[in-house]
Amino acid sequence: MTYDRTAVSAWAAPASKAALERTTIVRREVGANDVLIAIEYAGICHSDIHTVRGDWGPQPFPVVPGHEIVGIVAEIGKDVTNHRVGDRVGVGCLVNACRECVNCRRGEEQFCLNGSIATYAATDRDGSTTQGGYSTHVVVDANFVLSVPAGLDPAAAAPLLCAGITTYSPLKRWGAGPGKKVAVLGLGGLGHMAVKIAHAMGAEVIVLSQSLKKQEDAERLGADRYYATADPTTFEALAGELDLVINTVSVSLDMNAYLRLLAVDGAIVNVGAPPRAFSVAPMSLIYGRHALAGSMIGGIAETQEMLDFCAEHGIGSEIEVIAAEAVNEAYERVLASDVRYRFVIDAATM
Amino acid sequence: MTYDRTAVSAWAAPASKAALERTTIVRREVGANDVLIAIEYAGICHSDIHTVRGDWGPQPFPVVPGHEIVGIVAEIGKDVTNHRVGDRVGVGCLVNACRECVNCRRGEEQFCLNGSIATYAATDRDGSTTQGGYSTHVVVDANFVLSVPAGLDPAAAAPLLCAGITTYSPLKRWGAGPGKKVAVLGLGGLGHMAVKIAHAMGAEVIVLSQSLKKQEDAERLGADRYYATADPTTFEALAGELDLVINTVSVSLDMNAYLRLLAVDGAIVNVGAPPRAFSVAPMSLIYGRHALAGSMIGGIAETQEMLDFCAEHGIGSEIEVIAAEAVNEAYERVLASDVRYRFVIDAATM
Repeated sequence: MTYDRTAVSAWAAPASKAALERTTIVRREVGANDVLIAIEYAGICHSDIHTVRGDWGPQPFPVVPGHEIVGIVAEIGKDVTNHRVGDRVGVGCLVNACRECVNCRRGEEQFCLNGSIATYAATDRDGSTTQGGYSTHVVVDANFVLSVPAGLDPAAAAPLLCAGITTYSPLKRWGAGPGKKVAVLGLGGLGHMAVKIAHAMGAEVIVLSQSLKKQEDAERLGADRYYATADPTTFEALAGELDLVINTVSVSLDMNAYLRLLAVDGAIVNVGAPPRAFSVAPMSLIYGRHALAGSMIGGIAETQEMLDFCAEHGIGSEIEVIAAEAVNEAYERVLASDVRYRFVIDAATM
Repeated sequence: MTYDRTAVSAWAAPASKAALERTTIVRREVGANDVLIAIEYAGICHSDIHTVRGDWGPQPFPVVPGHEIVGIVAEIGKDVTNHRVGDRVGVGCLVNACRECVNCRRGEEQFCLNGSIATYAATDRDGSTTQGGYSTHVVVDANFVLSVPAGLDPAAAAPLLCAGITTYSPLKRWGAGPGKKVAVLGLGGLGHMAVKIAHAMGAEVIVLSQSLKKQEDAERLGADRYYATADPTTFEALAGELDLVINTVSVSLDMNAYLRLLAVDGAIVNVGAPPRAFSVAPMSLIYGRHALAGSMIGGIAETQEMLDFCAEHGIGSEIEVIAAEAVNEAYERVLASDVRYRFVIDAATM
């Protein structure tokens, strides 16, 4: 099938809270620094649902979600040197940034002081609106295109571009590794990646999930221990023990109860964003020298490092591949926590 | 004057909220591992006032406060090898710990899992009640006695044992040094030490104080810049700029407003303990990868390191030396923030 940039198949939400439907969109011409990607797979992230349901404010509908994209380079601009036609590549949550500010120069494009550009529903630097990966093709600045190493299954690699980097970055920054006890709070799309990556980093991995129902899964993914947070004895058993907690839960929790689980110099790093503020007793931080922190995806270089790490350790996401027609049903199942652990849309069905 | 351990002069609070008065106390015999210290100076810490006024719950009255102690070794037990008679030494907030738990073995005696023993108003491991430094003499386990390096003024060194280590520890742990912008929030007993130490570590030091009235002082102490927090433009001027904030203020602040001042990977470390919980918006942590942390004094080895650092850099506390008779008046002046920056009692007047 010939690629026609003015009629690219995609699935879009036409309005807030409306079901997604098949449509066509226009992709920009391949500029000197651009890469045209023939998409193979696009993961479904909870953020996609928040965005199209209006949880995060007004959006420039129609919105084509999707920021966990894997595909094959179909064309490159004349100045592109880091990717070649036929390469397998990925695109995550960012497709542009100023690349000149202090944060960009440090490789932290997600915190671009002039505004990093999200993969969908954002206004790009040229004034156009970005459209995401629920589509057959996408055109992206080569500097924001990652190499997907050989050996990674392309469908299972797609969720690494968001869920993978979101958990890899804080695990690395906060020292997950041999001799460290790392708890993962919540075993969903983010949490299951955190378990796999922390295990591969050599940490002792402890899963904290509401009930015991995912225990077998967690152990298969690499967890050494598993506790139900609905059981109050969990908070006695683990008091003062944890070096790091990656909190993937996006509902409000009693943060002081979790801070009491930390060892000296322990930290809780939040990667989910609950709607309400945390209430933190000062002594929960002072006694034991604890930290309550946050982390947001990662820069481009770190995302590449994460992909290479995952390839080296044979890590992919646990996925359920679906046809595009099933996307609305998949959204409902994500909201019901009925997926182990990530839906990935087969772009051949777009 | 001969030392009589059964009648040691001291100033004690006889009951909660009562004025301190002169009394005599009994010190234990000098055990095999003990050091008898003839006290020269004892600093007045805000904690002393909280304790005797009942802010921190019931206390074993009469209470002799004081955990910023400098003096001369008058006698040592037969097994003591690290201090000699005639040495100038110091005692801070801790006089005992189990020395066997994982935290003690790591030199973090303040977080002893079997309970570190505070210098006053605590039940020691032998069942006795500890009495602090507002006294002529004190008997302390040699492992909790610090060496005060030659060159430190003994009166100005006393506050280092609490205010010094409380600020040195987080400044070092969170990387204060050349190229880092370190803000000190609140310019009191703790804050003025933080300014001096951060400046000596090579950081750019920014003081955030309620009004401009301490600006000249702050600059003399080593601050590079000074802002009034009562001025809303301060929060625009410093947005996204600070690498580290040492929060010495023990009233509740709008923590989200201060988190917005942090650069990527910036942290606010709380060393004061406000009575109310912090309210922290998750995105204040996630965006910019910020941390809200705490710190509590330091271990014995780190306290010695801090004293050596201060001696090397000529750092003492800014003090007003008073006679013991003035202690109740001094308490009122501390509560009114009317001291620049620490009262120290001359033990010759006890």
